[in-house]
This record gives sequence, C-alpha cells and structure tokens, in this order.
Amino acid sequence: MIIALKRDIRQEEKEHLISWLESYGVRTHVSEGEYQTVIGLVGDTTRIDTDLISGLDIVQSVTRISEPFKKANRKFHPDDTVVQVTDQVAFGGGNFQIIAGPCSVETEDQVETIAKAVKESGAGMLRGGAFKPRTSPYDFQGLHGEGIRILLEVKKRTGMPIITEIMDIGHLPLFEQVDVIQVGARNMQNFELLKELGRIRKPILLKRGLANNIKELLMSAEYIMAGGNEQIILCERGVRTFETYTRNTLDLSAVAVLHELSHLPVVVDPSHATGAARYVKPMAMAAAACGADGLMIEVHNDPKHALCDGPQSLTPEQFDDVAKAVMKIRKALV
Amino acid sequence: MIIALKRDIRQEEKEHLISWLESYGVRTHVSEGEYQTVIGLVGDTTRIDTDLISGLDIVQSVTRISEPFKKANRKFHPDDTVVQVTDQVAFGGGNFQIIAGPCSVETEDQVETIAKAVKESGAGMLRGGAFKPRTSPYDFQGLHGEGIRILLEVKKRTGMPIITEIMDIGHLPLFEQVDVIQVGARNMQNFELLKELGRIRKPILLKRGLANNIKELLMSAEYIMAGGNEQIILCERGVRTFETYTRNTLDLSAVAVLHELSHLPVVVDPSHATGAARYVKPMAMAAAACGADGLMIEVHNDPKHALCDGPQSLTPEQFDDVAKAVMKIRKALV
Amino acid sequence: MIIALKRDIRQEEKEHLISWLESYGVRTHVSEGEYQTVIGLVGDTTRIDTDLISGLDIVQSVTRISEPFKKANRKFHPDDTVVQVTDQVAFGGGNFQIIAGPCSVETEDQVETIAKAVKESGAGMLRGGAFKPRTSPYDFQGLHGEGIRILLEVKKRTGMPIITEIMDIGHLPLFEQVDVIQVGARNMQNFELLKELGRIRKPILLKRGLANNIKELLMSAEYIMAGGNEQIILCERGVRTFETYTRNTLDLSAVAVLHELSHLPVVVDPSHATGAARYVKPMAMAAAACGADGLMIEVHNDPKHALCDGPQSLTPEQFDDVAKAVMKIRKALV
Amino acid sequence: MIIALKRDIRQEEKEHLISWLESYGVRTHVSEGEYQTVIGLVGDTTRIDTDLISGLDIVQSVTRISEPFKKANRKFHPDDTVVQVTDQVAFGGGNFQIIAGPCSVETEDQVETIAKAVKESGAGMLRGGAFKPRTSPYDFQGLHGEGIRILLEVKKRTGMPIITEIMDIGHLPLFEQVDVIQVGARNMQNFELLKELGRIRKPILLKRGLANNIKELLMSAEYIMAGGNEQIILCERGVRTFETYTRNTLDLSAVAVLHELSHLPVVVDPSHATGAARYVKPMAMAAAACGADGLMIEVHNDPKHALCDGPQSLTPEQFDDVAKAVMKIRKALV
Repeated sequence: MIIALKRDIRQEEKEHLISWLESYGVRTHVSEGEYQTVIGLVGDTTRIDTDLISGLDIVQSVTRISEPFKKANRKFHPDDTVVQVTDQVAFGGGNFQIIAGPCSVETEDQVETIAKAVKESGAGMLRGGAFKPRTSPYDFQGLHGEGIRILLEVKKRTGMPIITEIMDIGHLPLFEQVDVIQVGARNMQNFELLKELGRIRKPILLKRGLANNIKELLMSAEYIMAGGNEQIILCERGVRTFETYTRNTLDLSAVAVLHELSHLPVVVDPSHATGAARYVKPMAMAAAACGADGLMIEVHNDPKHALCDGPQSLTPEQFDDVAKAVMKIRKALV
Repeated sequence: MIIALKRDIRQEEKEHLISWLESYGVRTHVSEGEYQTVIGLVGDTTRIDTDLISGLDIVQSVTRISEPFKKANRKFHPDDTVVQVTDQVAFGGGNFQIIAGPCSVETEDQVETIAKAVKESGAGMLRGGAFKPRTSPYDFQGLHGEGIRILLEVKKRTGMPIITEIMDIGHLPLFEQVDVIQVGARNMQNFELLKELGRIRKPILLKRGLANNIKELLMSAEYIMAGGNEQIILCERGVRTFETYTRNTLDLSAVAVLHELSHLPVVVDPSHATGAARYVKPMAMAAAACGADGLMIEVHNDPKHALCDGPQSLTPEQFDDVAKAVMKIRKALV
Repeated sequence: MIIALKRDIRQEEKEHLISWLESYGVRTHVSEGEYQTVIGLVGDTTRIDTDLISGLDIVQSVTRISEPFKKANRKFHPDDTVVQVTDQVAFGGGNFQIIAGPCSVETEDQVETIAKAVKESGAGMLRGGAFKPRTSPYDFQGLHGEGIRILLEVKKRTGMPIITEIMDIGHLPLFEQVDVIQVGARNMQNFELLKELGRIRKPILLKRGLANNIKELLMSAEYIMAGGNEQIILCERGVRTFETYTRNTLDLSAVAVLHELSHLPVVVDPSHATGAARYVKPMAMAAAACGADGLMIEVHNDPKHALCDGPQSLTPEQFDDVAKAVMKIRKALV
Repeated sequence: MIIALKRDIRQEEKEHLISWLESYGVRTHVSEGEYQTVIGLVGDTTRIDTDLISGLDIVQSVTRISEPFKKANRKFHPDDTVVQVTDQVAFGGGNFQIIAGPCSVETEDQVETIAKAVKESGAGMLRGGAFKPRTSPYDFQGLHGEGIRILLEVKKRTGMPIITEIMDIGHLPLFEQVDVIQVGARNMQNFELLKELGRIRKPILLKRGLANNIKELLMSAEYIMAGGNEQIILCERGVRTFETYTRNTLDLSAVAVLHELSHLPVVVDPSHATGAARYVKPMAMAAAACGADGLMIEVHNDPKHALCDGPQSLTPEQFDDVAKAVMKIRKALV
C-alpha cells in the first residue's frame, strides 16, 4: 500500500500515523519527495482500511497495490476453483453449465414442465425463486417454503440440482436440501448474511450488486470464504448506468477481470441484466465467447403466464435455440 | 399508467394483456394510433409491476403517471409528517435537528465526552455505530450489544435520544430502548428487514442506497409504512457516480424532489457522502439552505483516535463551528 | 408522444399547450383521468422537444413512443444499411471487417510495418491517429497533416483503405482522400461538426460518447443523415461508470439494441473500452458473438515503442491470435 | 507519481520503463517490495501520461500524487483568481455575481425586457443563447449572428456585460464584443476549441461535461491557460447519473473540491442541472451556501412563450424571489 501525505504536515502527525500503521504488523518505508512524503507499506495490508486512511487531513492519496482480498485472490491460489455441485454438475476449471428455470415458482406442474424442457435442451441445473425481492411491497413476494418444497419435488423427479435465492438468515433452515444458495444483487453487501453463509458447507452463487464494483464483489466473496466456505460462484448480472434501453448494463469485461483477479468461477445472467427476452440470446452468446463458466437464464413454459414470469423470460423453444447457439460458441473456443 | 404497444401485434395478444390488466381492478382506455396502440390505465395501479410489463415482446414502453407509492405520497397526504422522537426532538414540519456522534462506539468515556460536547453545540440527538457494515471482513465490525448498552448509558446521563444502525432482523431485540433505528444504505432494499420494521412502532431513519433512485427510496419507505409504521425519516447520503474526489456524490436536489413527492422529513448526511471532514461544513450549510429537515454528522473526540473514527469525522471544535454556520443559514431562511 | 398533465391545472393552460402542440402539425387526443389529463400526440412528433415539455410546470411526464430519429430508424428502413468503403471492404448486412492500426501515427516505417502485418492477419482496413484528443495539453497531440500524408502513402503501398479521426471542421480539407472519417467519443455531440459531415459524401464512423445513451448516439447519426450523408458506421467503445478496473465499461448489449432500433452497421472498439491489451481478446470475441459488424483494434509493431502506442495496443502477433479467434466465432454464427 | 509493477517481470522491462520515464526529466526512486516493485517519480510529472503507463502489461497501478494541472492548481497559486469582466462585475476572491437571461435569444424586445427585469433584481450579467446545442437536428438551433447582435444591442441599452456560448472555432469572429465566452458541457473536451480560446484575451466560462470528473474539468481549463488565457470561470451544471427525477444530478460538493484544488472562481447553473424551474430556488440557495462565486439562471419574460424558453426558466417575478433568497444566504455567510 502506498500512502502519499500532504505537504507541510507536522512531524508528530507523520510519526503518529506511521506507528499506528506499524501496529497492524506491516513494515513502513518512507521516502521524502519535493512536494510530499510517501509511505510504502510492506506485508499483509488486508486488515488496513484504505477508506479510513484516505480521508485523513494529512493524507493526500492512498493506493492499495496488493488487493484487500486473500482467499479469493488468484495471486495466492493460481489454479481455478472447481465448484462441484453434484458428480455431473460443476462450474469452473473448464466446466460450463447453464442454469435455467422460472423467475418465480408458481406450481409443481409449471416447474416440472420447464425443468424437463430445459434439461432436454442441455441445462444442467434448475433455478426458481421462492423468496422474491420486489421493489414494491404490493408485488408478488413468492411462495416461500412451499416454493422450495416444489423445487425439491421436481429435483427428485428430474435429477436436476436446484438453486434458489435466500433473503434472510432466518430462512436458512428451509435451504438445507437446496444444492446451491443464491445471494441476490440487493444482498451482496448484507454482511451478516454473508458471514452466516460462511459457516455452512454448500456452494453459494453470489450476484454482483447493481452499483458494486469488481473489488467489492470479491470482498463479499471474501466474507463468505473467511468463514470457511470456499465453494463460491460469482455472477455478473449487469450494473446500473444512465442507459435506459436495457434494465441494467451487462458488464462482460468483468468476466475477464474476475478471471484475472480471482480463481473463482464466473457465471453471467443475461436475463436480469437486459430485462428483455429478445436480448438474452446475443448476450448469452457473448458471455460464452468471453469465457464465462456458465449462464443463468429465465425460462417460462406458458405464454399465458408470461406476465407472471417476467419479460426477460424465454419460452422453452426460445431457450432451446439459445442453448444450441451457446454450445456452438463453446465449441468454437476449443 | 400508459402502455404503448408495438406495431403489428396480434389482436388476441392485445386482448390477453388488457384482460390481465383489468384483473387488477383498473379500467383500461385504448386508443389506436397510426404506428401503435396506446392503453391508458385508470384507477389504483400500485399493484401493477411496470418492469414486468415493459419487457413484454408486444410492449414498446410503459409510463407510470401516478407514482407506485401511496402512503409515502404527498398527493394523498399534503401535510408534512412530523416524526416526534421525544417531546423536545422532532423532524419535519419546520422542525430541524442535528444528529451527531462517533462513527462507531468504542468506550463509554468516548461516547459521553462527544455527546456532552455536541449537545453543548446544539445537537439534538446522539448517533453511534454498534453494528458496522464494513466492506472487508478483516475490518472492525463494532461492539454489537455492548455498543448499544454504552449508548443507552450515555442517553441516561445526557438525556439525548439515540439512533443506531440495525443490520439484521435477529438483532431487533437489542434495539428495544433505542429511540430511532437506522437502516443503512446497503440495507435499503433488504425487504425482509423493512417488513419487520413495519411491524414495530418506533421511528426509522432510512438511508438512500448508493445506487438507488428517489422512487426506490420511497418504495422502501412504503414497505415499512405498508406494515403500519409511518414514522419514517428519509436520509440522503450520496450516490455512486464516476467522480472519485469525493467518496460519493451528494445529491442535494433529492431533498427538493423528496419534499415535493413525499410528506416525510428528509435529513442529509454530509459526512458519509463526501468521506472527508473538510467538505462537511460547506455541504452541511448547503443542505440546510435547500430545506433539509436535519443533518447527521460524524464527530470524534480525540485526534489520537481519529484513525478509528474515520476521515469524515469532525472534532467537537470543528462540529461547533459547523453547527453555528448551519444555524446562521437556518435563520436566513425565515 | 404521451403527455401527462398535473392535477388541478387551469383550463387555459391546458388549451394553450394543446394549441401550441398542434402548431407543430400533430393531432392531439385528450383523455381526462381521475388524477390527471393525458394528451396523446399522433403524427410526426420528431420536431417536438420532449425535454422542453417535460419540465413545464403543468406537465407531469412525457413519453416519446415513436423515436425522435427518422433516417436512422429501422422502423422506416427495415433493411440493413451496407456501408461500402471500397469494392472489397463493406460493413453491415452480413459484412464484417476488422479495422486495425496504431493509436497514433509516428513514422512511415511504423505504419507500413503494422499495416502489412494486420492485413496478413485479416484486417480489412487501416486505422491511425493523426489528430489526437488528449486530456492533457502537455501530452502528444499527433502529427496532424503529416500523419494523414503517411497514412495515404501506406494506403498506396498496401491497398488498405484508411480511417482517421477529425477533431475540427477546419481540418476537413486534409481528409479529402481519407476513406472513412472517424468522429471520436468527445465529439459525438459536436453538432456543428456533425452538420458539416452531413454535407460531404464519405462514410463516417461515429463513436458513442462516454456518457451518451443509445438514443443520443442515434440522434447524432441523424444529424449527419439529415444533411444527406447516410453512410454511417456506429461504434460502441464503452461508457463511463463507477467501475475502475477497466477504463470504461463496454456495453455490448448496445450492439443488440442498436441493431433493433437502427439499420446502420455497428462496430465495437474493445481497445479503448477496456484500456488494457489483455482484455481485448475476450471482448473482441464477445463482440463478434453478439453480432457486431466489425471491430476496431489498436496494434503497435514494436514493444520498445509500446509506451507511445498506449497500453491497449496489441503486438502484431497478439493481433493475429485475436483475429483467428474472432474468425472462429464468426464461423460458429453461420 | 507512484508506479507499482507486477511481480516476476523481467529486469530489462523494468530498466526500459525507468529509462523511458527519466527521459521525461523526472528522477525515479525504486523500492523493491515482497510482491512487487514500486517506482516513485520526483519532479515535474505533468508531461507523463498515466493512462498510457497504467495499461502496460508490466504495470499494476499508477497514482498521480501531484495533480497533472499546473496553471489551474492552487498549490502553485494560493490566492483566488479574480476574473474582472468589467469595473463593476467580477467573479472570485469574494466577488459573487448572478448571470441571468433567456435560454435562447428570440427578439430584441424579449431580451431587453428580461435584461431590465433581472438587472433590477440584482443580476450583474446577461446570458442568452445565439448558438444552441440541440440533441435533435430538428430542434431550433438559435439565431446565430443575429442573436449576438441583439445581445450587444441590449448590452448598449442596459450596460450589462453579456455571456453567450460558442460552438465552433469558425464562429469566433462573431464573439469579438462579447464579454465572456461560454464553452458548453458538450464542448468541454473539444480540445481544438480550447486551444483557440487560449490564444484570445477574454474571460471564458467553462462548463463541466455531463460525464467529466473534476480533474478533467481542470485539465480542460489547463488547455486554455496553457495558451496564455488565464481568465477562466469554472461552472458546475450537473453530471449524468442513474437518477431520472432531475435532468442531471447537481454535484455541489464539486464547488468545495474545486475551491480546494484550484484558484479559479466557480459558478453553479441550477437551471440546466435540475431541468425544472421549481428546483432552481433551493439549489441556488444551496450553491450560495457552499461558497459558489456566482450563479447562472435562466429567466423568460412571458409565460405564453415559456415553451420556447424551456422548462427550467423562471419568470422575472420568480427570479426576483430567488435572487432575494440567495442574497439572504450570502449575508448569512459573512
């Protein structure tokens, strides 16, 4: 870490800062420039809070050279992490999976029909929302426990592992038989929830927050890993920008950056990022082309219920077309 | 609500959409244009999810004319809501308060010293963090229950009502004697928490999320109000932009917009928005000048502990100067 | 266009607005709702300025249903526009081209070496900066006329058509023999320049501004087309967000949206978007996969001069690798 | 400047970089850390392009400690610059001015009526658009030369100095008698125009671009100052964010930051920032409260023509109310 100090600061302020820094067990290396003093920190700086230092009156700027995340850092774990969900289903290290299913779980029939269709088309895992984060308290909030029961029933019948979103620590017991627990964008920095998920031994799919940068996503992964749970799948699902034609702006360069900074697998959710079914195919193909380890795509079975499944959902036929196109791209990569 | 359909859509699709819309108890009013059909909805459209409709293949665009929030809406409650914390301390309807205190609670001495100083300078309420949302799992996470105990002890000695942040529903019992519960920016859309806070009868200070727009802030307030708790104080604390000189970009026009759209009081937190003590005074004065109903300012007592209190904190002397300047502005408004 | 009025507005205000609107030759269609009046406009609304109307005291909201662009609009020109640069080189309607070359033109040797290498690897067109938009007045500003002379010389020797950026109307005469004129992101809304380029008959590559949305990009294309020059190539090169790991955030969903809204070809510039050579390959592959009509990639010939060519430049060997990967993706699309 | 290199880089790459850096006349100071090498640069680093270095394969990160701007930098010019427009009208160093006038110049009557009214209310300077940057080629583009003639005529009759926007170098001769030339947000990085304005001796009002950060604004000022013209007034007019209730998000903390980093005066334009007349008063008051050196406010004379003057315009009566409120705030600052 490099800390540049302002000009004309008092000697004792400088010494106070240095001794405080060294109290964190790092070595300091001071060089006096013409206009300012620069302090270099060597050692484990992960426990030093840059935000805190950067705003001190005597400090001009702070740059972190070694990232603040350790367990998620490729520098210390060069090999890709492979998240093994079942014997057949894995993410990372060359393993690619498509997760598909309805936005929200409605009925056993609905979920089973979709599950069988997407499995037929090549999906390896079933998604479905039981707890729905909705901007409005007046919108449908999901079937909760009953929704998870339906997913587990369909899992039994189809053999597909399931993933569903958790919204509160209190609901954790309901997720015991769920294969992968999803943390949604709005909860990416719900730190109490992340800590709790660090204590269990189950893969977590962690979605990037709407306005969270790549470093913050990795720090949230670090929260879970610090607790001992290292089975994490990162998910890019679009960030919030000034653009309004798409619901969010899908940041595919994040896939390349995440693969460089971290050893964790990265999947892409083109359905939520674009908010419109007609953009899912091109974005799914682009995600596969830039090296994503998987995709998460919304599918609904029945146009009549399209309204409940949301605009970003594909029909099983459309999904089949997308899956085939994605597989073509995957082949071209070899 | 106005729904514009695409050209050349099949009649049954149109009818299916209309009948679905009417199933929500709204009246529809269809006008056929040259290039498209436009459906106008009359009645209570709050339960209709625009996101959902806007992405349908047959829909070109959706505009909500009556906002999706009702209880927080000034249209239906013209008079300012006054949040009465104690007999002496109120927000809104002409009542202005400065909330001051340390970023995080460390010791009884620290909190008491700061409390007495800021009260002397005119602060009406004491703030202090017991549970700290930290980006890094390796940063200090707060004293938790012990922190709240200290705040309550200092409340007893100084008579100042206290506000502190909640991070998880499970901690709610610890907040029984807390005067105002704060929901932080990262939890603004932690809907399960919001619902729970709707069930209690205690003022809530709801901070705007880093990337949440004004409508979403009011929808989160609506979540709490829908549960029956209408004592809500909104808080503008900066949004995330491309600018890096300040930690966030303080959006003071939000104060004017919120006062227009809603009857709820609005306070401004210049400390977290700017992330640097030297910008707190000008932004506090600006906030007072544009009609904020209060301010939330970080104060630390001891330069030696500045590092623990964070860069955005003022010394009691600096706070006294800010408070005097703010009061001058308040007088100029009369 | 749909204009929603506020409640309780005076009749004459409403009538004044309606008569003013009709003075633009559109028909109005008024429907009175419970809480507001809604005015629907039918006819050619392109000449009506929504920004202007949306802020009127009596107006609550304005939605444009038919886009404000006509000549660039696929609705009125269903077929893809093919921009034919030379007999061999075309963009759009299935034609895909890679534009490659140095960030800035330095010497004839440099440009010729790069040109021959990238042509060998499959690039169809040569790029090179003669006029460089630099954030700092102290940075290298380009060779200007001499740079263009060099490009034309190399064009003669290699037969590759050339593209280079214009920064001021006054320089236009120097571009007479240039095949395609580039308008950079910073000049996307330099409307005087756009008008001038509408008067010439030469393909224009129009880059999206750092903070301009898709509609504004198409409105800038409309400026050029309104003057009679319809040979326009749109270019996505990243938008500005809060993310700092990449220089900008490449918005690949814009490719899909632009192809839906407009008939103009769309190329992608992964070099400037990411600002780092190591991200160019995955983003180039992703761009090809989502249907871009071409790529614009920076290449430098000599690692020793890498510093002058910029961090986002590839070596000819790296470019060859990228070009081969992109061609594999293109094949997979068929 | 601090350059952190990656691990395991070849010695000759390191030496090549160092020798290249020193060729710019700076001294380098290398310290070898555990995980990387850090190079500190001492001396005048303004000519070194950080963007360029930061993307090099061997470089991990670059921090500029001394800002890249010199002439605009308060570090080298501690005293406020006072821009003296006339004997009576100055900006900076305690001088505060309100610039008022119509969005666009229509008729002599219109401008004269407004000018006399706003002068009466305390405005020191008259604004009016002759060349209008419009997003759509179909919108009114201004009266051009005739507009400037009208402004000069009204200047003669009222004695108010005038400011109007330039959009192209070619129009410069028309601006000979204009007192202050405005560079609009869209031209903030039209570097050819900035260079040209550096050659004249006339105050320039430089507006911040919609997506330009504070450093870029100061670099654009540096462009003009590098040419020898140091009479620059900076203008904050809102930046583009995800928020849609206001046209842009007014960044008032920029006023405090600019005053810290630079000696140049800073004015605020609440009219364009918010895009709605009803938000102008609170934002004008806030701007005055946080230390702005002036305001730029749109005023139209005739509600019947409100539509042509734009939604953000005030009536003379409303302006009088705003001016009085602003003056009250100014008094409170003393």
